[in-house]
Amino acid sequence: MNQNEFIKAYAPATVANVCCGFDVLGFALDQPGDEVWARLADKPGITITAVTGVAGLTADPKENVIGVVAQKMLDDLQLEQGLELQLHKGMPVGSGLGSSAASSAAAAFAVNELLGKPFTTQELVLYAMEGERKASGSAHADNVAPALLGGFVLVRDYAPLDVVPLGVPVDMFCSVLYPQIELKTSLSRSILKQEIPLKKGIRQWGNLAGLMVGLLKKDYGLIGRSLHDEIFEPERSILIPLFKQVKEAALAAGAMGCGISGSGPSIFALSATRETAQAVSAAMEKVYAHSGIETKSYLSPVPKEGVRLIAQTTLASA
Amino acid sequence: MNQNEFIKAYAPATVANVCCGFDVLGFALDQPGDEVWARLADKPGITITAVTGVAGLTADPKENVIGVVAQKMLDDLQLEQGLELQLHKGMPVGSGLGSSAASSAAAAFAVNELLGKPFTTQELVLYAMEGERKASGSAHADNVAPALLGGFVLVRDYAPLDVVPLGVPVDMFCSVLYPQIELKTSLSRSILKQEIPLKKGIRQWGNLAGLMVGLLKKDYGLIGRSLHDEIFEPERSILIPLFKQVKEAALAAGAMGCGISGSGPSIFALSATRETAQAVSAAMEKVYAHSGIETKSYLSPVPKEGVRLIAQTTLASA
Repeated sequence: MNQNEFIKAYAPATVANVCCGFDVLGFALDQPGDEVWARLADKPGITITAVTGVAGLTADPKENVIGVVAQKMLDDLQLEQGLELQLHKGMPVGSGLGSSAASSAAAAFAVNELLGKPFTTQELVLYAMEGERKASGSAHADNVAPALLGGFVLVRDYAPLDVVPLGVPVDMFCSVLYPQIELKTSLSRSILKQEIPLKKGIRQWGNLAGLMVGLLKKDYGLIGRSLHDEIFEPERSILIPLFKQVKEAALAAGAMGCGISGSGPSIFALSATRETAQAVSAAMEKVYAHSGIETKSYLSPVPKEGVRLIAQTTLASA
Repeated sequence: MNQNEFIKAYAPATVANVCCGFDVLGFALDQPGDEVWARLADKPGITITAVTGVAGLTADPKENVIGVVAQKMLDDLQLEQGLELQLHKGMPVGSGLGSSAASSAAAAFAVNELLGKPFTTQELVLYAMEGERKASGSAHADNVAPALLGGFVLVRDYAPLDVVPLGVPVDMFCSVLYPQIELKTSLSRSILKQEIPLKKGIRQWGNLAGLMVGLLKKDYGLIGRSLHDEIFEPERSILIPLFKQVKEAALAAGAMGCGISGSGPSIFALSATRETAQAVSAAMEKVYAHSGIETKSYLSPVPKEGVRLIAQTTLASA
């Protein structure tokens, strides 16, 4: 292998849960996203030589998710090979947009490319999940799977992992509003009840089934009717100032659905066209205009592609 | 209208719940099924002139579901018109195969034809649901909708009713075994808990979403992996002797999934080919062979069509 060879990979932000798909559904955005740069090192061990883009993230390879993911891949291959990694965060941490998933997915992809692709994409999902385990204590796949595979991805089950990519059957544009408040995933999860009313469960799975059918049959009306969450949103949205007003504004501006992205605080809305999504973004921002809370907005199509190679050296020797 | 005109309609048995689709999913069989014969009468009021096929069913039009459905249709049309109805049951009552739904669907369809089709098929679902309300106290749609529409039907929501026909995207054959024990729907419902563990809920909606995607993407593997029910089957199956053994036998014989039909006691299994379904039926029957419990078996494709006209008079005058 050539010591000068390097790989630079990009993995996008993702929206998990998607109203009725709590813990089983996510979709990719085109941007924002994270970049991971990786190179083979002379001596064993993983070094993270730079973490840029956001302040306060550790460069300790045992603590930063990109190091954790890479180490697990090397361990499973029983390789003593050393790696040099860099992480450029292009998105905020703790926003509910799958920040740790984007870093983990980019790391898994970059290291796999660097090592000559020993792993399948499905296996990369499992490695990226190790980053999630590090970041949140739970190896969930509903962010890393769309970050790696693009489009909408169903995580049907975990034992064994069954990841079902739906692609992007219909054009879909996502407006994201990130209110810059701190909201720990652990807090957002801790307020969830461990038992749910049967009646609400039935409505939830009816809606998720409707969303799947709507996506695959290209039925925007059915998609819109299905984008509801009566179980988690009522409990979680109280942690997000002005959530109700933002949602009303998004729907009034033409969004087909609106909800909490992941465990929040970001709020997402889906629209059928870019023009509608622009109007929706504007309407959502307006709600926060004089609130004293800083916001960031993103507008992105739901792309067919997830993680990707954005730069690499040419091989100088075999 | 011509007093001699008559209509005869057939509506098939249906399998509701379908493992992971509790209360929201059902599919049609081709047979068995019920026939309803309907004719305009000289004087107002509904008369049921015959109920054949099974013993013990009332001919009181206020008590038999076909009378209830027909009366509601006349009431909503503000018609004083009288009707003569007959019901021929081609399937057992209390079997978990949507017996009341088949009668109700056939009645709704026959009366609508007789009156010159004042109602849409979606409206007929609502009228047939009145028969279900009469029969079980709950106006559910997961049997009447597939009985009317054929194929697989998702009942996404009830408020308002949102019925989503999936058709039959892939060939599917259903083996049904009906152990002739008495099992009241009310008992089978009463043992259900009104709260469910969140974790099981998540697996249930992951599976239902997987089933939808499997059906629409024609992925038999995914369909098979999705046909599970960890919430209701463990509680309900204890009311059905030998259920576990029958299920094991069906899966061992090649069925892609097996579960309780509706609230039981019938057991259904789905297979990709008629040959497999035949082997599955034989394997299921064998389990009961020396049990002392009488059984009935049905083997049917899942048909694209549900209720249908099987006979009518030619109009003698306009």
